[in-house]
Amino acid sequence: MTDVRRETGEKERLVSELAPRLCNWDRWKPDDGVGALNLVDEGKRLEGREAIRSGVAISLGFELQDGVPQPPGSGRLNPQHVMTELPTAAAFESGESVFADDMLIMAVHAATHWDALSHCFHGGAMYGGISAYEVTATDGAAHNDIVPVARRLVTRGVLADVARHRGVEVLPSGHGIGPDELADTLAAQGVEVRPGDALLVRTGLLGATVRSGAWTEFAQCGEQVPNTPGVGVDALPLIHELGVCAIACDNWAVEQLTGGGPLFPVHELALVYMGMPLGENFELDALADACAAAGQWDFFFAGQPLPIRGGVGGPVNPMAVL
Amino acid sequence: MTDVRRETGEKERLVSELAPRLCNWDRWKPDDGVGALNLVDEGKRLEGREAIRSGVAISLGFELQDGVPQPPGSGRLNPQHVMTELPTAAAFESGESVFADDMLIMAVHAATHWDALSHCFHGGAMYGGISAYEVTATDGAAHNDIVPVARRLVTRGVLADVARHRGVEVLPSGHGIGPDELADTLAAQGVEVRPGDALLVRTGLLGATVRSGAWTEFAQCGEQVPNTPGVGVDALPLIHELGVCAIACDNWAVEQLTGGGPLFPVHELALVYMGMPLGENFELDALADACAAAGQWDFFFAGQPLPIRGGVGGPVNPMAVL
Amino acid sequence: MTDVRRETGEKERLVSELAPRLCNWDRWKPDDGVGALNLVDEGKRLEGREAIRSGVAISLGFELQDGVPQPPGSGRLNPQHVMTELPTAAAFESGESVFADDMLIMAVHAATHWDALSHCFHGGAMYGGISAYEVTATDGAAHNDIVPVARRLVTRGVLADVARHRGVEVLPSGHGIGPDELADTLAAQGVEVRPGDALLVRTGLLGATVRSGAWTEFAQCGEQVPNTPGVGVDALPLIHELGVCAIACDNWAVEQLTGGGPLFPVHELALVYMGMPLGENFELDALADACAAAGQWDFFFAGQPLPIRGGVGGPVNPMAVL
Amino acid sequence: MTDVRRETGEKERLVSELAPRLCNWDRWKPDDGVGALNLVDEGKRLEGREAIRSGVAISLGFELQDGVPQPPGSGRLNPQHVMTELPTAAAFESGESVFADDMLIMAVHAATHWDALSHCFHGGAMYGGISAYEVTATDGAAHNDIVPVARRLVTRGVLADVARHRGVEVLPSGHGIGPDELADTLAAQGVEVRPGDALLVRTGLLGATVRSGAWTEFAQCGEQVPNTPGVGVDALPLIHELGVCAIACDNWAVEQLTGGGPLFPVHELALVYMGMPLGENFELDALADACAAAGQWDFFFAGQPLPIRGGVGGPVNPMAVL
Repeated sequence: MTDVRRETGEKERLVSELAPRLCNWDRWKPDDGVGALNLVDEGKRLEGREAIRSGVAISLGFELQDGVPQPPGSGRLNPQHVMTELPTAAAFESGESVFADDMLIMAVHAATHWDALSHCFHGGAMYGGISAYEVTATDGAAHNDIVPVARRLVTRGVLADVARHRGVEVLPSGHGIGPDELADTLAAQGVEVRPGDALLVRTGLLGATVRSGAWTEFAQCGEQVPNTPGVGVDALPLIHELGVCAIACDNWAVEQLTGGGPLFPVHELALVYMGMPLGENFELDALADACAAAGQWDFFFAGQPLPIRGGVGGPVNPMAVL
Repeated sequence: MTDVRRETGEKERLVSELAPRLCNWDRWKPDDGVGALNLVDEGKRLEGREAIRSGVAISLGFELQDGVPQPPGSGRLNPQHVMTELPTAAAFESGESVFADDMLIMAVHAATHWDALSHCFHGGAMYGGISAYEVTATDGAAHNDIVPVARRLVTRGVLADVARHRGVEVLPSGHGIGPDELADTLAAQGVEVRPGDALLVRTGLLGATVRSGAWTEFAQCGEQVPNTPGVGVDALPLIHELGVCAIACDNWAVEQLTGGGPLFPVHELALVYMGMPLGENFELDALADACAAAGQWDFFFAGQPLPIRGGVGGPVNPMAVL
Repeated sequence: MTDVRRETGEKERLVSELAPRLCNWDRWKPDDGVGALNLVDEGKRLEGREAIRSGVAISLGFELQDGVPQPPGSGRLNPQHVMTELPTAAAFESGESVFADDMLIMAVHAATHWDALSHCFHGGAMYGGISAYEVTATDGAAHNDIVPVARRLVTRGVLADVARHRGVEVLPSGHGIGPDELADTLAAQGVEVRPGDALLVRTGLLGATVRSGAWTEFAQCGEQVPNTPGVGVDALPLIHELGVCAIACDNWAVEQLTGGGPLFPVHELALVYMGMPLGENFELDALADACAAAGQWDFFFAGQPLPIRGGVGGPVNPMAVL
Repeated sequence: MTDVRRETGEKERLVSELAPRLCNWDRWKPDDGVGALNLVDEGKRLEGREAIRSGVAISLGFELQDGVPQPPGSGRLNPQHVMTELPTAAAFESGESVFADDMLIMAVHAATHWDALSHCFHGGAMYGGISAYEVTATDGAAHNDIVPVARRLVTRGVLADVARHRGVEVLPSGHGIGPDELADTLAAQGVEVRPGDALLVRTGLLGATVRSGAWTEFAQCGEQVPNTPGVGVDALPLIHELGVCAIACDNWAVEQLTGGGPLFPVHELALVYMGMPLGENFELDALADACAAAGQWDFFFAGQPLPIRGGVGGPVNPMAVL
């Protein structure tokens, strides 16, 4: 567990030290836009099939609405839903068919979503060593956009319910889930993580925040990063070793946030070096209950986001089937 | 096959005649917002699991982009993707982590999507006999929004590749797929449709239009309805009898369009009376090729859309796993 | 001065009593969309010209920004400004011209704006007795949209600086400016209001809120109406008699708000019966200082909003020239 | 007149040759964001007042609508107007006040607008020699945004009706209005341009395109620049000498377009070196008729755009008062 306010220099030291160990740039074709999802193939999906035992399906997408989860001043626009056509008496009188139609306006990263491999940069580069400046205002991400992820992200999923393992509603503020705690949780659950799995890590934070309404402590507001529990940077070597293809959490940034400036070592290592998409604002409480009830911590995971051309992320309604 | 320009009176006659036969309002709880998806339960998903044979996953979502598929003047806004944060030299120099962020603006029904049971009305009502005026500018759909569909739509899927069965690239303009043609296609493919299945029907139109660029002949422009192939209203009794939970096509409106005014009998019957979501602008060509190659026409279908509160539809990146 | 929490019945009584006295439906062509702006003609603008004495121009538009003035949960989206094109090193190297481009997304009534005569309704009708249902999701306002206002609203303006007259920074919460106070202020300023004038009434609220940051007390949040100072309904007969063509204030709703439910008698009387556009969120502090310094309370007023087809309001950067 | 397809090198030569003659960077405070609008002061507005003779006001703003003037594929989003609140029977029954509300989504440069001094760059810089990279995805233009223009742009205006002077409905495709033609037009009209004037130049193109519907020949589509008439680069020295503070035209880009790549020497010289805002898509036909009828070619010009924080342009409904 790491629980300190980080400095810029410390963040940089962590990343520099771990990047060479975790880097996947030479492991696959560096510009295929797929990254660690190269670990997901047909055989992997057959493994996912085996995890369907009862047929229970649980949707992990936070309902799109305009008030939450991004607090005011966060810099991300919550989903705005507006009607562009409505039924009217005149329409019914016309004898023609009558419809309602609507529009959606949202920050791509506002609700439940995947970060694409073009969402974060380090040393001027994104995954594969591709220049950060390949992401432009005109075209979005010319490389590593969310489309390849959208075409591939169906696999076996595993839940690590760390909050339940510790017997708490929600992990402490700023708590970092380290390799031992992660391994202990998985061992206690009796589930094995295998190459190509999507790993869902539960902190309890999103559900607790829904109940408390303390959204300003949930997400970044301007330059202010909150203290929230999440994956610690020291857990990444284990995650790398296990061959996880993607991580998602029930918090705003996957990783442990310790206040201070916007320092995200897990983003830099996972997205830039490991090529591993990060899933944020996943609703994991119902899934956790179902897993605990069934004593089953793996499942078929259909986590494919919307295929936005040039998108540096993609909204998603992930589905776990037990 | 029906291939005529319809009149308002004829549309009304068709709907009035078939509605009593097809109506599901009293079959389940009329205000559960789920409709024919009541046919999808855990056992059904286990059937879906059995359809996973090789682990090939095929994404059916049309890439979100600003130029297509809605032609200019259609009244629906194609997805607009804009960047709200970009990497800069100054950001790299700051030592803090560097990100790109983005925003999405789109008509909900512009790209690949499901129509919610609040998208279409008949006789002042939507599915379950609920007043059409429960859909408002302020709140969207207070009943029958897309959320219950988003929580449920994972099941066994079956492809009826009608274009391939007829040996054509694309079905003729304005062609209606009737019950015999649908049954013949399924029989020739050797696949059985069972209660709770999602039925995907391939006309060839979306792929052909991608190649031809003739988008103004693909979608409605203002009051102008194109002539496009699709599901004929006469096929609905068979679809009802088979227990299909949702239909999706590779065209703009699922149903056969025969020009003239905006007359959509299949929408009225399927959405309002049968409570069956309609999926539009699905990309089915790659799936069709994979099915033909495997000689397998059923698959696990993860078709869950985004859960938009109040939404009368939901964008989706549907995934078929063979 | 009226300073009580209103009940629905009281609001209705006030409106019913005053509507017959204030109604302009038969005074001009009821469907010309211009309403009280019929009082503005060429001669009126020559009067406006005479009010230009020193050539000082003061812009009254609140800077469009994403954080204010609408508080979170208000239901109106503050202006979102996003870049769609940016200069890049590659662009400079191309030898072609290099540009930046942008997009604006906003609630029409979020910042400084005029309410069109289709913004408010009473008894099922809008100005001219036209059915409220002529405003639709598809077309916006088919009658009384903002366009005729946008083509006409240049006239002589008069400022009534009520806050300065009372010697306060801002009028008390929930304070209603009645006819005596309005007349006293104008008399003390030594300025005459004449038919066709636009009347700007200063409460001090917007400036005080900019300084205090208490935006949740400034604007409606959901069903919660704040207590704010503004024009009292009892001032309308005087305003009618004076021949004012439009009123604007440095508050959120022109009128006095007294908490409780969303009851807006001034909106109903001014917009629906008098046909008088209401201007909201006007920045009046700099104008007030300039008027006080010059001892001049009238000016040329260029208050034309954007001509949005179907708009029930229009954003504006109003300009006063002394 | 210049009427050739330009090459990149020729564009660069023109700009390099003229920039030293036209540059205003050292004339005023280089970072005041005001540029040539420094020429507009109180005395100038008193000159503007003298141009009000009959009180006729003519609005020059193109009606905001979703289909035009940007053709499909232009890369700029036409204004989208959507309703967020509508009157309903239930609302009327509640006894509370009943409203309609709306939202506006648009490219800032889609309809009638001013280019800010941060819209175009040359040699890595914008007006005042400020780095182009001061315009970012996060904040828009940190310098030279549209706000200072919005606070200042009220002055005397002069119309040069070149189309009428030549006796044509619209100037020829790709025609460049040179210094002689501009001077001849002004002389024939008998109007003098004086320092601080806004100069409106009429080509006839916008009105002709409204009648013909040939919008794809009006505006840039992707990389395709149309051939349209406009101000020639050789007219800039005269315009500089006359002390014009801003130029606006009834075309898409103010300047003569001659096809080929996106080469805009007038933008580079006027915005970057002269610090002179450019106004585009102005409707000048009604103004031209009024000027011709009155034999008066100058007027009071209230051209203030919306004050968008960070905006590289601003929508406007400009008003001319004769």
